[in-house]
Amino acid sequence: MALVVGSFCAAFLWLLDGVTEARFMHPWLLFGLPGAGAAIGAVYAWVGRPAEGGNNLIVDQIHEPGGGIPLRMAPLIVISTLVTHLFGGSAGREGTAVQLGGTIASAIGKPFGLGPADTSMLLTTGIAAGFGAVFGTPIAGAVFALEVLAVGRVQYSALVPCVLAAIVGDWACHIWGITHVAYHVAFSSVTDGPAGSFHADPVLLAKVALAGVAFGLASLLFSEAMHWCGSAFKRLCTIPWLRPAIGGLAVIGLTYALGTRDYLGLGVTSPDPHAASIVAFFGNHVFPWAWAWKIVFTVATLATGFKGGEVTPLFFIGAGLGNALSGLLGAPTDLFAALGFVAIFAGASNTPLACTIMGIELFGSGNTIYIAVACFVAYLCSGHSGIYLAQRLAVPKT
Amino acid sequence: MALVVGSFCAAFLWLLDGVTEARFMHPWLLFGLPGAGAAIGAVYAWVGRPAEGGNNLIVDQIHEPGGGIPLRMAPLIVISTLVTHLFGGSAGREGTAVQLGGTIASAIGKPFGLGPADTSMLLTTGIAAGFGAVFGTPIAGAVFALEVLAVGRVQYSALVPCVLAAIVGDWACHIWGITHVAYHVAFSSVTDGPAGSFHADPVLLAKVALAGVAFGLASLLFSEAMHWCGSAFKRLCTIPWLRPAIGGLAVIGLTYALGTRDYLGLGVTSPDPHAASIVAFFGNHVFPWAWAWKIVFTVATLATGFKGGEVTPLFFIGAGLGNALSGLLGAPTDLFAALGFVAIFAGASNTPLACTIMGIELFGSGNTIYIAVACFVAYLCSGHSGIYLAQRLAVPKT
Repeated sequence: MALVVGSFCAAFLWLLDGVTEARFMHPWLLFGLPGAGAAIGAVYAWVGRPAEGGNNLIVDQIHEPGGGIPLRMAPLIVISTLVTHLFGGSAGREGTAVQLGGTIASAIGKPFGLGPADTSMLLTTGIAAGFGAVFGTPIAGAVFALEVLAVGRVQYSALVPCVLAAIVGDWACHIWGITHVAYHVAFSSVTDGPAGSFHADPVLLAKVALAGVAFGLASLLFSEAMHWCGSAFKRLCTIPWLRPAIGGLAVIGLTYALGTRDYLGLGVTSPDPHAASIVAFFGNHVFPWAWAWKIVFTVATLATGFKGGEVTPLFFIGAGLGNALSGLLGAPTDLFAALGFVAIFAGASNTPLACTIMGIELFGSGNTIYIAVACFVAYLCSGHSGIYLAQRLAVPKT
Repeated sequence: MALVVGSFCAAFLWLLDGVTEARFMHPWLLFGLPGAGAAIGAVYAWVGRPAEGGNNLIVDQIHEPGGGIPLRMAPLIVISTLVTHLFGGSAGREGTAVQLGGTIASAIGKPFGLGPADTSMLLTTGIAAGFGAVFGTPIAGAVFALEVLAVGRVQYSALVPCVLAAIVGDWACHIWGITHVAYHVAFSSVTDGPAGSFHADPVLLAKVALAGVAFGLASLLFSEAMHWCGSAFKRLCTIPWLRPAIGGLAVIGLTYALGTRDYLGLGVTSPDPHAASIVAFFGNHVFPWAWAWKIVFTVATLATGFKGGEVTPLFFIGAGLGNALSGLLGAPTDLFAALGFVAIFAGASNTPLACTIMGIELFGSGNTIYIAVACFVAYLCSGHSGIYLAQRLAVPKT
């Protein structure tokens, strides 16, 4: 199962790279965004009924199996994500990978007539495989799959299956030749030898905790903006295909109003080395407001009905905010970009442990303490809703 | 609070080092072990009533506050642990640190008249501070404090307080000049750059999973031997002060029967570079049965009534078993010693996430996947009882 999920994720990532390249080469594609949005809206309105639930449908099915996940969700989400990215919508990819993982797991499990408990476990491993493969962080993927189901609690019922699924998913992705962008954090708090000789700098730690509060509040702002704009817009405009078309027009308008294309697409890299991108946030240049504009672009894209994930935009927002804060607080830019990258996601998805491990998998163990503090504080400050509304509330935060 | 706990832990570690040095210099001290045992047994029988519960008392008080933790537990456990180590008993130190942390937290909280929820949280942060300080692994300490309370579940009610307590505890310990032994794992699966470019070797991964099963079973054997021998011995010998005296005689007998002092005390380092010790297990020499003898010595010491922790002996047993298995499986010795070190503790205390993070904090992020797999598999194979009988069972393992 994990092999299949990993391979599909590899194919998806490969196509996504191609699509992003195409968009860089043909700037006029942006004008197709309203039309593409109308098409996505129309297709989902026509055949997508339960599939529209996306990640929330999968989480719901894990909590209470029954009804199942329609197989058509997989091609629908992959194609609509690729279309969103081709025409320049600001969106992510992990939502797609998680839905792909969950759908494939559900399809593979169906012929075996599994009971509710086994179905839950299979879907959970599907999430782990998808997440592990798409970011190249298998242990974080496994913990994420268990942690995302409820706020404030992790249960270990599927620990080993998840970790195996995530490792195999990641491995399958590597076999197909997919490589992940490596972020470089030169700053390390470890001065002499292994992490055992770590000495936390209290001043820096206080700055990290302060930044954690900001990351948590930014994730709260993002989640609330997504939910509020999404439902307000649904009330204002009742024609499903018209909503993403209007969203597409808004993105075009914003792009020309700001005179920059930095906030379109994934935003991981950019053909222009001086542009705002996740990689650029780890450099020396400070971008004070890139994070705020990315929130506006992403809400305009996803809340109006385009498809894709919320997480890569969140990484952009977090790394951008970290980059901006490092200037204000007089702290290492690369470290704070890294902290924002994982901490804002910890806040938005209520998965502080998975994001701490992800930070270690991506940036090494030299800054474990700062990563953990930023993720835990952001989790505490992000409120209870988060980006996944199907999450159950197990343990309130205060 | 954490400052006080960290400082007391520093003092304890400093005294423990001195005591261990004294034992190395004066081998005849071993003959005092039965007498020392009789003294410890007598003192605990006389004034120790609830304090005898040790770690289990603290876990119980977190689940259901009431009755409180007697302040005399702190000096009792510190002195009796030091006495145990001075005369050569095979025991650890983290049980002492956790009890010290919990007792101090309880004493500091008492004048404020805290409610049950706040008392639980304060005791949990006390555990985090003690654990973080004694091993120099603050994030693992914080996660451990939350994870150890129940099997199969982590709840986040005290996440940020725990991480702050653990960091401050660790930091206080450093300020007093305590350094932790650094273990060196040269083997790393990361070949080019950060962990993002990780490629797990499937063959090695299978060996790691197999070793994980062995670590889990060894932790099961250790826990069951401790519980079974402890209660059987209590039935056989009803005089409290006589039990540790007999235990001391058994340790002397075993030492002379084997003709080695390698299994006495902490076992972290040894004055003889060729002797079995945790540090030696990370070297090239293979010790096939050291792990099994350490189980025998530790059961003879702790199950008869000496004081100290179970965890440093567990590290010895795990690292020794990893060392032995690396020879059988044809795997890197240092990596397997490191895996055994954390995985056996993950199995015995049912804290796979804390031990994964501990492995990363001690050995770096290069082998994150292997550490996680070994810890998770060991957790799955270790049964439900573990070394802490007060743990609640939240989610069964199968």
